[in-house]
Amino acid sequence: MVTEDEAMRRAIALAARGLGTTSPNPVVGCLLLDAAGEIVGEGFHAYAGGPHAEIVALAQAGERARGGTAVVSLEPCNHTGRTGPCSHALINAGVRRVVIAVDDPTSEAAGGAVTMRAAGVQVETGVRRREAEQGNVAWLTAVRRGRPYVTWKFAATLDGRSAAADGTSQWITSAPARSDVHLLRGTMDAIMVGAGTVIADDPQLTVRDLKDGSLAIKQPLRVVVDSQGRTPEKARVRDVTAPTWIVTNREVGAGPDGRVDLNALLQALFGRGIRSVLLEGGPTLAGSFLAAGLVDQVIGYVAPKLLGAGKAALLDAGVATIGDAVELDLTDIAQIGPDLRFTASLRQKPSDQGAF
Amino acid sequence: MVTEDEAMRRAIALAARGLGTTSPNPVVGCLLLDAAGEIVGEGFHAYAGGPHAEIVALAQAGERARGGTAVVSLEPCNHTGRTGPCSHALINAGVRRVVIAVDDPTSEAAGGAVTMRAAGVQVETGVRRREAEQGNVAWLTAVRRGRPYVTWKFAATLDGRSAAADGTSQWITSAPARSDVHLLRGTMDAIMVGAGTVIADDPQLTVRDLKDGSLAIKQPLRVVVDSQGRTPEKARVRDVTAPTWIVTNREVGAGPDGRVDLNALLQALFGRGIRSVLLEGGPTLAGSFLAAGLVDQVIGYVAPKLLGAGKAALLDAGVATIGDAVELDLTDIAQIGPDLRFTASLRQKPSDQGAF
Repeated sequence: MVTEDEAMRRAIALAARGLGTTSPNPVVGCLLLDAAGEIVGEGFHAYAGGPHAEIVALAQAGERARGGTAVVSLEPCNHTGRTGPCSHALINAGVRRVVIAVDDPTSEAAGGAVTMRAAGVQVETGVRRREAEQGNVAWLTAVRRGRPYVTWKFAATLDGRSAAADGTSQWITSAPARSDVHLLRGTMDAIMVGAGTVIADDPQLTVRDLKDGSLAIKQPLRVVVDSQGRTPEKARVRDVTAPTWIVTNREVGAGPDGRVDLNALLQALFGRGIRSVLLEGGPTLAGSFLAAGLVDQVIGYVAPKLLGAGKAALLDAGVATIGDAVELDLTDIAQIGPDLRFTASLRQKPSDQGAF
Repeated sequence: MVTEDEAMRRAIALAARGLGTTSPNPVVGCLLLDAAGEIVGEGFHAYAGGPHAEIVALAQAGERARGGTAVVSLEPCNHTGRTGPCSHALINAGVRRVVIAVDDPTSEAAGGAVTMRAAGVQVETGVRRREAEQGNVAWLTAVRRGRPYVTWKFAATLDGRSAAADGTSQWITSAPARSDVHLLRGTMDAIMVGAGTVIADDPQLTVRDLKDGSLAIKQPLRVVVDSQGRTPEKARVRDVTAPTWIVTNREVGAGPDGRVDLNALLQALFGRGIRSVLLEGGPTLAGSFLAAGLVDQVIGYVAPKLLGAGKAALLDAGVATIGDAVELDLTDIAQIGPDLRFTASLRQKPSDQGAF
């Protein structure tokens, strides 16, 4: 038997397996325990339109769910979308108790806890909430702000250079770090670069297994921020391996600087169901996002090398003096081959405190 | 009782207490164990001209040293300098066995092991050698190369900036990181900067307790690399708190670039008894040292901040293309307050393999 707390830990881990394929839905994991505390079913939400985590777990458990406990990382939905409401499914299966980590913040889907309590189900919320919120941070932030969660990823030397003086940059970081980037891309709904990066490096921006070159089944949307429509006809981002959106001023409007309005761009992406964006470069586009306060997370791959010249990892972030530096809270440091991977969230300024 | 291995670990830790005050001598620690393995004496070499570690430990042990074991981090000296040979002192005290980590590589002082063996003392060498070499790395590297061991220290943001666009840099790193720099300075024989840094920041370059401003008793030599003699008359590095050497082309000669010849400068410092140098900036001087292959260690204090503009941590290190990047081996990463401290050694190129 497992405790409800341990079951929640597993439900949160299960949920993460859906990252990158559930948008516009959140990731959710669910464990069903029988009256004796034995696991009789488990499931996660794998893709939008597919069964919810609770339904997968209930199907596994069958009659053994009756009188048992459902442990679920997000409040079961209460609405009929492409699938029926999970609150009803749990009631109908005879589940006695439901343990929830995070309440559903959306007006459409919320209300599951109320519905279940009214039907006599014992409902507890807030178990491992912080951990579950972290696991769903992109979706939660996105639905609360009405724009995708933006992660800026960069690769640089210890002195902050992303290319050498002659422009060469292959490879600043190691093969393990590059593979890690592909894993990261696989958890995202969209990958974004500026047109300058497309012109300079002609990246394919796909999720691949770097050992054999095979493509992941689900590819994120490729987004090129290209105010003036400079993306070459033969650029690899235009190939058929993944969907691509070349964003020009004409489509989403220009900001005061004459370039694509980034707020409008993010709103448009949200409207297309995108909840997480991996911003990969270049330094000027990253600077514009930071200056506009539109970056939520930074992941830096730093190679133990020095260059002393060449392209900076970041330009023009709107910081003129040291007191205005963009402050980060490091949440993780990992060694990836010979390189280091820093994960950090943007430190919230007092005015942001209302947001998640 | 302690094992000889454990005793050596303590001897190496004791030795480190002399860092910064023993040059031109190495740091050395010594434990004396009686026949039962109890510690009866311990000592370290505290300052040049003062008693060696073995002599301090023998004085503590007195008659209890007879029949015992001396555990010492460096081969006991065999020559009469400002003090008598330690090999004779150990023999005369009746020590039965001597355990040594590292052989003395200098022609003047070596031979202690041979002398003691000839007198019937059991001598074992190589115990925890790597660890002891690391503890004495500055002195060992210096005597093997005939120039001081050079550590380049920098402070920067995660994107490699040492100042903001308007030149402000106080404070990029936190108070704990700045205190740590003073501890680091205290282990060095000399602190070096370029004249540009003196003109821009007017640093005092002393070792202080940042809480109360009190000065350490022993201050490293302050070295300003100042080809054209631009250091202002009122610069704080000229004050009386510590010795200072303003190095001009006239004194040590100019290199092909018309600036102070760095090899000649390091040889001159070695001649003055300097075994370790902390190179603190600016980015151009650091680049020149790296380009000349004269940096042994890099210590970077990295703040979890982004600037996107402003002074780079490093310039002109002689690297034109990515394949020629200066490669580092990270030896330590520590969290210092909110900041990170990276310690790395320069990866040796094949041509360097003969050196330590």
